[in-house]
Amino acid sequence: MKTYLDCFPCFVNQALRAGRLATTNKKKIKKLLDEVGMMLKDIPLENTPPETGALIYKKIRKITGNPDPFKKIKHIYTEKALSLYPLLKEKVKNSTDSLLTAIRFAIAGNIIDFGVNQHIDLEKEINSVIKKDFAIFHYQEFKEHLKRSKSILYIGDNAGETVFDRILIEELKKTVIFVVRDIPVINDATYSDAVQAQINEVAKIIPAGSGAPGLILNKCSNKFIKIFNNADMIISKGQGNYEGLSDEKKTIFFLLKVKCPVIARNIGVDVGDIILKGISI
Amino acid sequence: MKTYLDCFPCFVNQALRAGRLATTNKKKIKKLLDEVGMMLKDIPLENTPPETGALIYKKIRKITGNPDPFKKIKHIYTEKALSLYPLLKEKVKNSTDSLLTAIRFAIAGNIIDFGVNQHIDLEKEINSVIKKDFAIFHYQEFKEHLKRSKSILYIGDNAGETVFDRILIEELKKTVIFVVRDIPVINDATYSDAVQAQINEVAKIIPAGSGAPGLILNKCSNKFIKIFNNADMIISKGQGNYEGLSDEKKTIFFLLKVKCPVIARNIGVDVGDIILKGISI
Repeated sequence: MKTYLDCFPCFVNQALRAGRLATTNKKKIKKLLDEVGMMLKDIPLENTPPETGALIYKKIRKITGNPDPFKKIKHIYTEKALSLYPLLKEKVKNSTDSLLTAIRFAIAGNIIDFGVNQHIDLEKEINSVIKKDFAIFHYQEFKEHLKRSKSILYIGDNAGETVFDRILIEELKKTVIFVVRDIPVINDATYSDAVQAQINEVAKIIPAGSGAPGLILNKCSNKFIKIFNNADMIISKGQGNYEGLSDEKKTIFFLLKVKCPVIARNIGVDVGDIILKGISI
Repeated sequence: MKTYLDCFPCFVNQALRAGRLATTNKKKIKKLLDEVGMMLKDIPLENTPPETGALIYKKIRKITGNPDPFKKIKHIYTEKALSLYPLLKEKVKNSTDSLLTAIRFAIAGNIIDFGVNQHIDLEKEINSVIKKDFAIFHYQEFKEHLKRSKSILYIGDNAGETVFDRILIEELKKTVIFVVRDIPVINDATYSDAVQAQINEVAKIIPAGSGAPGLILNKCSNKFIKIFNNADMIISKGQGNYEGLSDEKKTIFFLLKVKCPVIARNIGVDVGDIILKGISI
């Protein structure tokens, strides 16, 4: 997905919000806003938004000196999600379509997105997503692809959401590689965040070789690109990965909750909608 | 009022919204965002937000070539307000406290603010403000000052709102000077907008000698500053004028609806609150 004009004020707003989490020093936050402001002219509309996200978070780290402003939040939400895990597993087990219920939970977990939200009610979100109609629902195709795939490349999004991903991974009943960010960016899951969610017990965890808050293939390591190209089936979680991957020619199933009006417009749905969308299927 | 860190993303957002009204040329809007981005570093936190507003709208005029993006909107809302005028006059006449009812209407009209809102339901706002409690209510002091004043300097805000101001001016029963912006900025009232609202029938209309979307005294003409300093009583409408004048030492009564979280924090009230606040009273 390309950058829309609406993304520009949002870039400055994200810098402000993350800057405030990274430091209480007002002068440093002002400097951050100044530098992000000066960056805008160098962002072509052809770039994907996570490419800019990577530059902004690099500036945040450099100016505030804080390598991981969302560290505490990531830990708290992973713990919170872990405490819900037994109950959610029970619900999946008792449901008529356990795969679909697990998909719904994986989407509910996508609410833990501090690039967009500041206040999150996890239980409320689970109860909402479990009964919500999908705006795009390529479930049949998802099941067919899953059936004929040996292994799945599962591209993770936020820390905490990872616990919900683990529930879905367990229902896929395939060999799964779980992809994380190389370095902390927003509250996206890194290797250690994924381990806290015990993803390592159900999948092999690998970094994408990029620090963007969304998977952009041409910014990834050659090693990762090879794994990506050879994958039988790809599942991509969340908005950032959608922004990075929506124009790829590979079969990818996107699972997300739409939280941004620009992405809603790009997909052709409304903010608040839930999506199971396959491309090149 | 000084500039808060939260104002910076808002400056970029305002440029985008006004840029889109001024032109459909995407490249020009991108150039506008680039230039406003580069401006951020030159905006000290000590400036009042309307000072930056003036710079942004100067850029909008220059880059898009459109001197008055809100011209049509201003005309439509003034017409709409004029159509409500007879009904509102009737309500003022039949109320137990006609001055207070007129003040409430003048605040209701402050919803016509395209610096903040994009969709406005004027009738709904009138019905809401007429029964809403004031968060700050210096009405007694307002009446006392009014009683001992010969003439009133009334600082206008938006076009269309001017019709509601006219109703209040008629209830003041004093000699009134109505202050407008020199040049078009957002949907603020200029001389011709005020004349469309027939303010000229109830007050003398003068420009402030500044193109900022809020009255900043040290940016006004010497002629205006003299009038300001000699005024018996000053009534200031809306957020922009509050931002410009809130730190002055003169007796000023601010009438506004609070629409911005930063201004709400500065005043110590909530977004959505209505205010009749006097300073140096």
